[in-house]
Amino acid sequence: MKKFLNSPQTMLDESFDGFVAAHSDIVIGGEERKFVRRRTLTPGKVGLVSGGGSGHEPLHAGFVGLGMLDAACPGQIFTSPTPDQMLAAVEAVDQGGGVVLIVKNYEGDVMNFEMAAEVSDGRCVTVLTDDDVAVESSTYSTGRRGVAGTLIVEKLVGAAAQAGMKRSELQALGQGVNRRTRSMGVALTSCTVPAAGKPNFELGDNEIEMGVGIHGEPGRRRVALASAHALVEEMVNAILVDLAPRRGSEAILFVNGFGGTPLIELYLLYHEAARIIDAAGLKPARSLVGSFVTSLDMAGASITVSLLDDGAARLWDAPVHTAALRWGV
Amino acid sequence: MKKFLNSPQTMLDESFDGFVAAHSDIVIGGEERKFVRRRTLTPGKVGLVSGGGSGHEPLHAGFVGLGMLDAACPGQIFTSPTPDQMLAAVEAVDQGGGVVLIVKNYEGDVMNFEMAAEVSDGRCVTVLTDDDVAVESSTYSTGRRGVAGTLIVEKLVGAAAQAGMKRSELQALGQGVNRRTRSMGVALTSCTVPAAGKPNFELGDNEIEMGVGIHGEPGRRRVALASAHALVEEMVNAILVDLAPRRGSEAILFVNGFGGTPLIELYLLYHEAARIIDAAGLKPARSLVGSFVTSLDMAGASITVSLLDDGAARLWDAPVHTAALRWGV
Repeated sequence: MKKFLNSPQTMLDESFDGFVAAHSDIVIGGEERKFVRRRTLTPGKVGLVSGGGSGHEPLHAGFVGLGMLDAACPGQIFTSPTPDQMLAAVEAVDQGGGVVLIVKNYEGDVMNFEMAAEVSDGRCVTVLTDDDVAVESSTYSTGRRGVAGTLIVEKLVGAAAQAGMKRSELQALGQGVNRRTRSMGVALTSCTVPAAGKPNFELGDNEIEMGVGIHGEPGRRRVALASAHALVEEMVNAILVDLAPRRGSEAILFVNGFGGTPLIELYLLYHEAARIIDAAGLKPARSLVGSFVTSLDMAGASITVSLLDDGAARLWDAPVHTAALRWGV
Repeated sequence: MKKFLNSPQTMLDESFDGFVAAHSDIVIGGEERKFVRRRTLTPGKVGLVSGGGSGHEPLHAGFVGLGMLDAACPGQIFTSPTPDQMLAAVEAVDQGGGVVLIVKNYEGDVMNFEMAAEVSDGRCVTVLTDDDVAVESSTYSTGRRGVAGTLIVEKLVGAAAQAGMKRSELQALGQGVNRRTRSMGVALTSCTVPAAGKPNFELGDNEIEMGVGIHGEPGRRRVALASAHALVEEMVNAILVDLAPRRGSEAILFVNGFGGTPLIELYLLYHEAARIIDAAGLKPARSLVGSFVTSLDMAGASITVSLLDDGAARLWDAPVHTAALRWGV
């Protein structure tokens, strides 16, 4: 294992401190590093809190700021944060209008966010994301996994909260966005958890994991590496079959790298994906290309398609000022 | 070699087309893919053109847009673009005020940009970047190499051009920024050029290349992997010895990933680097963390320190709207 670190035990704390220092204009770190929160909260706004295991950076801390999340709780690598962290974050950002929790559908996250919601005396409602079409259940999830589409839920709900939308409407919006959003990924290599020091799983020299999860958990099948065209076709078709969009619809097309794949390859995937969804009668009216929902150093990528109605396009375009996404500000 | 591609021969064209399609609000592709240029030029502004071998994405095409470059010419991987491409880009963006060429100091780039400048009838002046302190000459360069600091030159000169500065002043500004900017990098792994199909160079399981160039060319020495603290200390000290900043100065601190290193590690490096430059009496008043000047899929990172005077801080903060850097718009 070759990584930049001092020790696996201190890695997350040091990275947390670096993040907070590099973006001190946007965020502050919570006590005991329980959460990252917006430096300046918008008075009266409904709070938005997310979180999950570390190793997916910039998700979620990189999405804290104006127009997106108010706080994010980082767990240990690939491990849910604790209810204690979530409760501290909720208390730090609730200004009377309550809090929406955005939770990726993994058993640990779901359980811990539920516990935090229970002890928060009705302050929290939850939006669960489960956009991954690859498998119906998996190593850490009952039902579909929440993956890169979570970014889109956080962006759209964040923009609506910034515009003053109430908590119950935000929850309904988030659930609607999640229903209109589908993703699928593929791994070219494993990722290596620092404390383990060796790859999470093994892939042969010419083998890939089609439908991989963002912790390296199994997807649909191991297959031989194929052309980018064939890989993208399989992923996008799986998404489109599931999403069943009306011809003429508009969508966000999001090509996401898993951490070890460079931009030159991600744009090539975008090129393939845009052609395929275009041929299916779907217009890629908004685009995002980059490594936003990662799996440590895994080489690989996912594709996300999120159907846009007029309101969603406006929310996507609304100003956002976070470490990882920024426009209009 | 496991990469997302259809064939090494078509990879760059497909990636180019994907980039232009994903960012069609900002850029258009030049004829025969000779360059990427801003969709909307600012009337009367001095043109800014850069370029270089592909494999360093998002550099340079990702920096085309309002407040930064007007055009970028991509060469083959790690190979200079041709004078023909540069001339076409100059013609596409010159609006009568002439053009500033921003050129990384590699022999091929320098020679080809010089030829383009010669046949452009006095329309072009050049700013050469050579911010890498690792070695005094190298595989492809006589004198120091231009590396990640080039981003800072492009941002500051781009902001000044957007504000209406004349060509000769822009050249002087760019040369001044380059003099106040120093970088050094380290590789944990090699990169793999798709057409070659195998790693560019070999590193042992516990070996790193200290002072590596952005094409994988040799740095100062091969050493055993050390702690992040020790690696950053060596890089930052090399920079500070060379830069000799006055105590109390302000700087941009830029931690740049080479393509295969995830953000979690880059923020850890930032944490170390910020502490060291702070202890040296230098304030990291602006920060940038991410993979902006890459070497295909290489795992590794570089650190750049650029001294700020009042004018430079204002130029850094000025609005920019490109694929890879965006704020204030």
